[in-house]
Amino acid sequence: MAKDKSTRRPKAETPKGFRDYFGADVTERKAMLDRIAEVYHLYGFDPLETSAVETVEALGKFLPDVDRPNEGVFAWQEDSDWLALRYDLTAPLARVAAQYRNDLPSPYRRYAMGPVWRNEKPGPGRFRQFYQCDADTVGAPSVAADAEICAMLADTLEAVGIPRGDYIIRVNNRKVLNGVMEVAGILDPNDPEKFAAERGIVLRAIDKLDRLGEDGVRALLGAGRKDESGDFTKGAGLGDEQAGVVMGFMAAKRSTGAGTVARLRELVGGSATGLEGVEELEMIAGLLAAQGYGPDRVDIDPSVVRGLGYYTGPVFEAELTFEILDEKGRPRQFGSVAGGGRYDDLVKRFTGQAVPATGVSIGVDRLLAALREKRKQAGTERKESGPVIVTVMDRDRMADYQAMVGELRAAGIRAEVYLGNPKNFGNQLKYADKRNSPVAIIQGGDEAARGVVQIKDLILGARIASEASLEEWKSQPAQFEAPRADLVAAVRRLLEG
Amino acid sequence: MAKDKSTRRPKAETPKGFRDYFGADVTERKAMLDRIAEVYHLYGFDPLETSAVETVEALGKFLPDVDRPNEGVFAWQEDSDWLALRYDLTAPLARVAAQYRNDLPSPYRRYAMGPVWRNEKPGPGRFRQFYQCDADTVGAPSVAADAEICAMLADTLEAVGIPRGDYIIRVNNRKVLNGVMEVAGILDPNDPEKFAAERGIVLRAIDKLDRLGEDGVRALLGAGRKDESGDFTKGAGLGDEQAGVVMGFMAAKRSTGAGTVARLRELVGGSATGLEGVEELEMIAGLLAAQGYGPDRVDIDPSVVRGLGYYTGPVFEAELTFEILDEKGRPRQFGSVAGGGRYDDLVKRFTGQAVPATGVSIGVDRLLAALREKRKQAGTERKESGPVIVTVMDRDRMADYQAMVGELRAAGIRAEVYLGNPKNFGNQLKYADKRNSPVAIIQGGDEAARGVVQIKDLILGARIASEASLEEWKSQPAQFEAPRADLVAAVRRLLEG
Repeated sequence: MAKDKSTRRPKAETPKGFRDYFGADVTERKAMLDRIAEVYHLYGFDPLETSAVETVEALGKFLPDVDRPNEGVFAWQEDSDWLALRYDLTAPLARVAAQYRNDLPSPYRRYAMGPVWRNEKPGPGRFRQFYQCDADTVGAPSVAADAEICAMLADTLEAVGIPRGDYIIRVNNRKVLNGVMEVAGILDPNDPEKFAAERGIVLRAIDKLDRLGEDGVRALLGAGRKDESGDFTKGAGLGDEQAGVVMGFMAAKRSTGAGTVARLRELVGGSATGLEGVEELEMIAGLLAAQGYGPDRVDIDPSVVRGLGYYTGPVFEAELTFEILDEKGRPRQFGSVAGGGRYDDLVKRFTGQAVPATGVSIGVDRLLAALREKRKQAGTERKESGPVIVTVMDRDRMADYQAMVGELRAAGIRAEVYLGNPKNFGNQLKYADKRNSPVAIIQGGDEAARGVVQIKDLILGARIASEASLEEWKSQPAQFEAPRADLVAAVRRLLEG
Repeated sequence: MAKDKSTRRPKAETPKGFRDYFGADVTERKAMLDRIAEVYHLYGFDPLETSAVETVEALGKFLPDVDRPNEGVFAWQEDSDWLALRYDLTAPLARVAAQYRNDLPSPYRRYAMGPVWRNEKPGPGRFRQFYQCDADTVGAPSVAADAEICAMLADTLEAVGIPRGDYIIRVNNRKVLNGVMEVAGILDPNDPEKFAAERGIVLRAIDKLDRLGEDGVRALLGAGRKDESGDFTKGAGLGDEQAGVVMGFMAAKRSTGAGTVARLRELVGGSATGLEGVEELEMIAGLLAAQGYGPDRVDIDPSVVRGLGYYTGPVFEAELTFEILDEKGRPRQFGSVAGGGRYDDLVKRFTGQAVPATGVSIGVDRLLAALREKRKQAGTERKESGPVIVTVMDRDRMADYQAMVGELRAAGIRAEVYLGNPKNFGNQLKYADKRNSPVAIIQGGDEAARGVVQIKDLILGARIASEASLEEWKSQPAQFEAPRADLVAAVRRLLEG
């Protein structure tokens, strides 16, 4: 038995819901994150890299119980502590802001980039490890901090290659929604806990406007909604008039920011919180307009609420407005790539003292997919060229071939010697093809004796192979001879040509 | 009870053995890794980023049992599978090489950079999450691949800032050691399992030569060794003559590579494996010498064995030879920063087919510490300058201050508005100091009316404050007035001066 077990081979598989990134997947993401970091840096943000592992207690929200310790997170017990992989970059920031509160500058502007993990059912395009890229300001109570995040987000999108006109950052304020809910009678400022469950349903319903449409949202505000599969989702139980107030809020957008603000002011009626929220929106829009970020880039939009419960003030969402084709070939907007808002209570969990904070999180994979789509539409997709391959004709002259790649690299040209079994020369050229190599170098004994090398233009070669007649192909214009001493210059001419 | 629990505050603490990286910790490491990636890329290596989570089965080595599922790794059960955080970057590569064997080019040159996790007792400078940076070639049987890794490692060390002469890459071969152990009678080629435990002890003993000295190693080769604390480590139980053969191997280094090779050839006697190993060492040294990597950079050294059991051929280790002071102020060499070797059996675990592989792993934190030490010794430590701070004298003119930072940023100058409570101006300057800001901008109502700004040179100011007399300080030469329209030009002059 024991022997059987030890000889069984392990499966070579990525765990379910996880994936590997190869070559350009890694370098393209890195290039994008480098550009983003440059913008964040210019705005005075400093990098922070927390560990992937946190105590479950510090992560909060997903507290473990004995039966199901890992609801939403990947968690394990370590002596007496429960540890878990972080599920976002905000919870670790709140922990850091509390832990180092005496050492960090205040306000503390930080950015963070890295993987997060979610213990959720994987699905197509839904992975259990993915990248986030966040920027947050902790300790700045003024909405000037929120406005700054919005401006920086706009700059960031343009810096990575989303042209102006192809994105819009929509801004709203939770306080306005709270004011509307006061008016609708489902929020009592003197007893904020009352109707909390109903308000949660309202929040999630509004967040689904895009997907469910007005009727769907109205059903969720009322008794509930049966979806196509027949599953029933319980509604908030609002009366028609109450639901009407909420629906009115979502439709409050007017053609100008001033118009929208005026409409919101009507809707929140006498709610002090609601009026505060409207004023904050006005201030944000004013600050941004003064810096040249008009409503073509950052706009007030009451239909944006963001799903997360912890936002306390302004919320924002960046949407890409250019069209792509969905699975069925119908055009639709690319959609959301980033979102955030103000969360003044997260650090308080640790310290008991309120610490204002606001920030944004970019969905790295979404934004990267958008950039690829833009390049595809523009016909500017890049396929990175591989290294120059020095083939091995004579195993005993490996040192000569190594000397060639050494010279090429010294000239800054990516190059390698073929290190597989050199017996079958066809395999060497197949390898060069798989690597997308632009050039192969060939030097057999005869060439070595004559002090020359054969230089094979693989890009031209591939074109000739697919387009040319047999006669043309046979004449092999894609391969030429050069003096060994001119190797680097000849390869460089080919690569630059 | 329940209420009590819910109001208890979580501790704001990094889990034991984990750490956070701030500011320059992140950017300096990133800059180093970027330089390393450039060298790897030039050599034709492609990036690979596997997920942090693997099945325990794929990781191998640390198989879980019911009592202690997480020996060495952080592991947890997920439905019927055990998952774990990767403990190095080699095991995931072996999994990838097996999983994608039909799609990857062969040979497959890949590099990987990222955190790994070890479930070990944390200690001073010993963390449970740390970075590795690996380059490996899978599918290349020839020692030309090992030689390439050594050459690339030398180039990499120089590229990040370790000058030639300050490092040495030592190369050895497990086959030579196996030959020596055949001669010593503790390896029988016909029954490789016999004496496996003894050989493990021998391997680890040789690996400790630096730390234990010759006497310590000899004790471990024999009956065993009692350390300073009185703990006894069981030895390999070799007789005096057997131990002498092993000690002779460790001392086989001669002043020239040819001399060392000749001595090794004597030592392995008639062992076929041993002779093969000696020939491989000769070939590696020959290939490297032909490319200009002489024994001042890559040298044959029989005392290098590397602790890991899975190496099957050449092994190598990069040591930094410049001196630092230890905790007690005594000079010692900086020591090892990278190591690796050939492991031809790791992919076979999955596929049953032997796949040759060789590679190197750089200890990122160690190398970064070495670079800092070098800069410290050279007096070229950099302290990154913070952003220009635009102070807030008048809360109502926030838009004006935002416009200033907007202009500065547009000119590529890192800048931010102070976003804390602006009431206490002293706090704003303290903040600028904490951020290591070079310049603060001040514009009160009076300056605004006159169309000017005050520009405060904080670096000069700090110098005057620490060196100058009160009179000089009062004359405030570190602050001057400039027309508002000249803001960017004036700041730029200051930063460039």
